[in-house]
Amino acid sequence: MARLVLHEYAASGNCYKVRLTAALLGLPLERREYDIMNGETRTPEFLAEVNANGRIPVLQVGNRFIAESNAACFYLADGSHLVAGDRFERADMLRWMFFEQYSHEPNVATLRFWLGWIGEENWSDAQRAAAPGKRAAGEAALKLMDEHLSGADWLVGGALTLADITLYAYTHVAGDAFFMLEDYPAVQAWLGRVEAEPGYIPIDA
Amino acid sequence: MARLVLHEYAASGNCYKVRLTAALLGLPLERREYDIMNGETRTPEFLAEVNANGRIPVLQVGNRFIAESNAACFYLADGSHLVAGDRFERADMLRWMFFEQYSHEPNVATLRFWLGWIGEENWSDAQRAAAPGKRAAGEAALKLMDEHLSGADWLVGGALTLADITLYAYTHVAGDAFFMLEDYPAVQAWLGRVEAEPGYIPIDA
Repeated sequence: MARLVLHEYAASGNCYKVRLTAALLGLPLERREYDIMNGETRTPEFLAEVNANGRIPVLQVGNRFIAESNAACFYLADGSHLVAGDRFERADMLRWMFFEQYSHEPNVATLRFWLGWIGEENWSDAQRAAAPGKRAAGEAALKLMDEHLSGADWLVGGALTLADITLYAYTHVAGDAFFMLEDYPAVQAWLGRVEAEPGYIPIDA
Repeated sequence: MARLVLHEYAASGNCYKVRLTAALLGLPLERREYDIMNGETRTPEFLAEVNANGRIPVLQVGNRFIAESNAACFYLADGSHLVAGDRFERADMLRWMFFEQYSHEPNVATLRFWLGWIGEENWSDAQRAAAPGKRAAGEAALKLMDEHLSGADWLVGGALTLADITLYAYTHVAGDAFFMLEDYPAVQAWLGRVEAEPGYIPIDA
């Protein structure tokens, strides 16, 4: 495989999920950190060379770039045991990954960022108006996962896939946004199963 | 392939993209319509049997169900010419599909729904506070696509893929939300290329 470089902000769960996928696959990954609080992903150079969308993570593969965290995870895992081999299960895995980006990340991750990085005292009127809806939607996402995991060890099929890795990233730090993980016991047990996987690395590794 | 049933609300771009994928592949698709304005996707029966997340579209494959529009498209197209065969291009295709659900649909599609179905006079305070941000983010998504398509006929590689189909769905009706497509000439030309594909069907077919 070509040289792999992760353009990232290490504390971001979206960046961590790419590192975790690489670690579980034993793939070496170089890392380049950007200060997102000071606009380092909005410079003309970054927009022209790395990602016109001005976001991290971006996975560099040789001299080409893949934006969107879940697409970067898919690139790394394509053809491996982390992508379900059965056609239905592969689509079901992607179902959870799209759910992650649509129903989980914009609520759980955004509240974590707003609370831990911006600070409630600095919120705009639009953020203040949006926060209760994001709280309710985040709880709904965790409840949906908890109900599913009450009857299954993994989100798809009988083993860990990218569905688990991508949803693990922000779920395990949901407490940073004051979501109470003890209200979701099946999710808590599943977090433990992910952490017991050979090759697992924590977010601050 | 098992019997395919699309659980849907026909005017939704997310449902249309599944129909368009099936049509381009020549796959027969039964359709079952739900009245989302009257809560038909939130009934106990729907939540228990079709989608615990209470959303459409859901693709039924035999007696199993796939939620999330882009995952349903992937199921239908898996192994066909609509999924890029090259590893990098396949991840890049998914990049655009995650961009669609994260940066495009929550802005372009949501404003279309808020304006055309709810009506601005009925907006909540939270919707009123969020609308300007969604307008700006929708314009940014269209601009990003326009810049990319200024140098390429298709979003990925040299032919139509699911990246084009999934982004076509809400882009071609962005005018419903008062986005001015004439400001994005490369996008307009690309819309025409999608519509010229053999098997293409319009949203109201």
